[in-house]
Amino acid sequence: MTDKTKRGQLSAQTRTIAAQTSASGSRPPSPDRRRFLTGTAAAGAAGLLGSGGALAGNPDNLPPNVPDWSRYLGVGVDANPYGMPVEFESHVVRRNVEWLTATTESSVNFTPIHEMDGFVTPNGLCFERHHGGMAVIAPEDYRLMINGLVDRPLIFTYQDLLRFPPESRFHFLECAANSGMEWRGAQLNGVQYTHGMIHCVYYTGVPLKTLLNEAGIKTSGKWILAEGADSSGMSRSIPLEKALDDCLVAYSQNGERLRAEQGYPVRLVVPGWEGNMWVKWLRRIEVGDKAWYHREETSKYTDLLPDGTARKFTWAMDAKSVITSPSPEKPVLGEGPQVIKGLAWSGHGKIKRVDVSTDGGINWQTAKLHAPVLSKSLTYFTLPWSWNGEEVLLQSRAIDETGYVQPEMAALQEARGVNSIYHNNSVQTWLVNANGAVDNVRLG
Amino acid sequence: MTDKTKRGQLSAQTRTIAAQTSASGSRPPSPDRRRFLTGTAAAGAAGLLGSGGALAGNPDNLPPNVPDWSRYLGVGVDANPYGMPVEFESHVVRRNVEWLTATTESSVNFTPIHEMDGFVTPNGLCFERHHGGMAVIAPEDYRLMINGLVDRPLIFTYQDLLRFPPESRFHFLECAANSGMEWRGAQLNGVQYTHGMIHCVYYTGVPLKTLLNEAGIKTSGKWILAEGADSSGMSRSIPLEKALDDCLVAYSQNGERLRAEQGYPVRLVVPGWEGNMWVKWLRRIEVGDKAWYHREETSKYTDLLPDGTARKFTWAMDAKSVITSPSPEKPVLGEGPQVIKGLAWSGHGKIKRVDVSTDGGINWQTAKLHAPVLSKSLTYFTLPWSWNGEEVLLQSRAIDETGYVQPEMAALQEARGVNSIYHNNSVQTWLVNANGAVDNVRLG
Repeated sequence: MTDKTKRGQLSAQTRTIAAQTSASGSRPPSPDRRRFLTGTAAAGAAGLLGSGGALAGNPDNLPPNVPDWSRYLGVGVDANPYGMPVEFESHVVRRNVEWLTATTESSVNFTPIHEMDGFVTPNGLCFERHHGGMAVIAPEDYRLMINGLVDRPLIFTYQDLLRFPPESRFHFLECAANSGMEWRGAQLNGVQYTHGMIHCVYYTGVPLKTLLNEAGIKTSGKWILAEGADSSGMSRSIPLEKALDDCLVAYSQNGERLRAEQGYPVRLVVPGWEGNMWVKWLRRIEVGDKAWYHREETSKYTDLLPDGTARKFTWAMDAKSVITSPSPEKPVLGEGPQVIKGLAWSGHGKIKRVDVSTDGGINWQTAKLHAPVLSKSLTYFTLPWSWNGEEVLLQSRAIDETGYVQPEMAALQEARGVNSIYHNNSVQTWLVNANGAVDNVRLG
Repeated sequence: MTDKTKRGQLSAQTRTIAAQTSASGSRPPSPDRRRFLTGTAAAGAAGLLGSGGALAGNPDNLPPNVPDWSRYLGVGVDANPYGMPVEFESHVVRRNVEWLTATTESSVNFTPIHEMDGFVTPNGLCFERHHGGMAVIAPEDYRLMINGLVDRPLIFTYQDLLRFPPESRFHFLECAANSGMEWRGAQLNGVQYTHGMIHCVYYTGVPLKTLLNEAGIKTSGKWILAEGADSSGMSRSIPLEKALDDCLVAYSQNGERLRAEQGYPVRLVVPGWEGNMWVKWLRRIEVGDKAWYHREETSKYTDLLPDGTARKFTWAMDAKSVITSPSPEKPVLGEGPQVIKGLAWSGHGKIKRVDVSTDGGINWQTAKLHAPVLSKSLTYFTLPWSWNGEEVLLQSRAIDETGYVQPEMAALQEARGVNSIYHNNSVQTWLVNANGAVDNVRLG
């Protein structure tokens, strides 16, 4: 993010705080902390209901003041055959970072995870990452070929795939480069940018195992190649064991057919593993006896170590978490009781526990995990909290069912050096300033 | 639906079948049922990949034919800050029935449940039912009052509500009149219209119990009134026991803030109970010592019995299910293996079992229930099936965890007569014709 962009964002935060203050109208923040919320007020006083424009015609400011939306018929039902968010939520959108990539066709935009309530990502907000732009493929033109070390090479139409027994599961998809810019310090002042290359939706499709069994895998088959139909020909090698375990040839997300930018009509779902392996616009599955060492698993998506060698085939996404509110985009709006909210996930199974610190990692409290806690899915966590108006360092750390604990950056760097931009799953720190604004900071 | 509309729909089905046939190109349906799918073909023959327009420049029709979407850069990532479905899915929309109500402000549109893969409804497809049109309320103008038999009458702003510990759950919302037109026979030839006044999303909000406890309920308090801020002043009485059990004051659906047509910024969630009680644009909660007998629980939303009395306070939605594919909108596209798909739900808890019959209720098979099977939520079921090209009568029946079995219409009518339009949870029958078209029929 450029300094200019960063400044713009911080001033936007200030505006948010100012707007909130004025939204409370003539009621000043109560200093009485025995009351649960500073914003509540006893009924019977002035300014009770609909204190906005509706009060203009009610100079006495006494109930019952009847706002316009209670007085006049609203919009009828046939206006929106496919509904969209209300105008007041127009700030909840995916965003990109212009300087990050050379062209928009090989770029990324980010999920506004600070706006998500819970573990499901709405389809319209799932981040995009393309290597050659978004392919647009009519379902009647779609074909999926299975070839290589199989008894019966096959080609499936889209309608063929719909005739197989389906399977549906919630899974997170995280880009290997999520939080990558943070490897060498606090670079981006917004959780949408530091952690927003992730989404979690309900995928429906045919188990890849079903289709491979239709083709019949020869005993020499040990790997598959998944190949995309987009202009980048995105291709990845996947061990046969994983292909036969929990992979889906998916045609649906959150109950409706895939969005074009998520690979319509068909993408691969590779639960828990890095996002570029979830090949979109899936065109071909080849069965082979060894890995292909394609471009996207050699020059890209490997981690350069200090000794000049590379960590290769870094498939699984290790346990990770982040506080989404407060965050740079969600400043603290006032002292007193409120809730710390965040997301945790692991490519190795379920999240077992999330700890939250408000003093930069010295003391930790256990957060509440919200049901459903599912394997290789986002998990929503919350922790009630009361802010005293002083500077605070917020952190979260995830522990998954294997016992793995989300590491500090120092531990990651000691093992991998400072060259990598992939697989940064370290603990994130937010500084809550005395004015409520929140900044991305690096400790130690 | 008028005859004209109905004819239009049937001819649309025919077109769908024709389109599917031509999409398979020169490959005729295989009569060989040992092969799992009639549409698969051995690779190596002509017409393998991208058989659409991409073949135009490849007269030899041999691989590798490289379609345009593999040859040219696609659309970049910044084009859609809030994503929409791809053009090929433009038929997947909510639909209304013009003659059903006098005006669109007091009307309904229907969820295309035949297009849903799984139990989650995308936000853009959740049916709408308004009594005075859709209110549009800016969050800074929103207030929620709690008054009546409480120790401390309170008013909450929107930001106040966001500071309470949230709770999130999947729940179905079904209109009491869903399937109501079918009470006296098979009226509407489409599952979107017969069963589409339902949706199931992940609601997030504050437990109503939390807010009532903030206000402090006097011992004389036994009921609450939930009042909407829309022009109809939608109001319902709810027993305090339910209010303190599982109701949510919700501000979010499927991870993003409520859609305007679902009550933005705040609606009541009353799990398992009829949809009109889930008051949208929630303005006020009053605690009282008896029910209010408001308009919407006396002249409406009661069932007129043959003896002239009314079934009142018919809150819970009994167990119900429907096959969504095949259905009038999802004709059978060919003989051989395929999957029967459907949805089941109960306002009394979890679905325990779904039975499916292909012979009009003589024999039954147990369908697969897809995880997650949640309380007061939709449950997706499937059953692999092979069609032999003959006429078939398809039915499903749900059994919930209380042991309740979804009834036949005859049993409902014997108990309640023929005047009612509410709470029709009877078994639905689809006739699969020899040409694959599907019709809504009534047995017996």
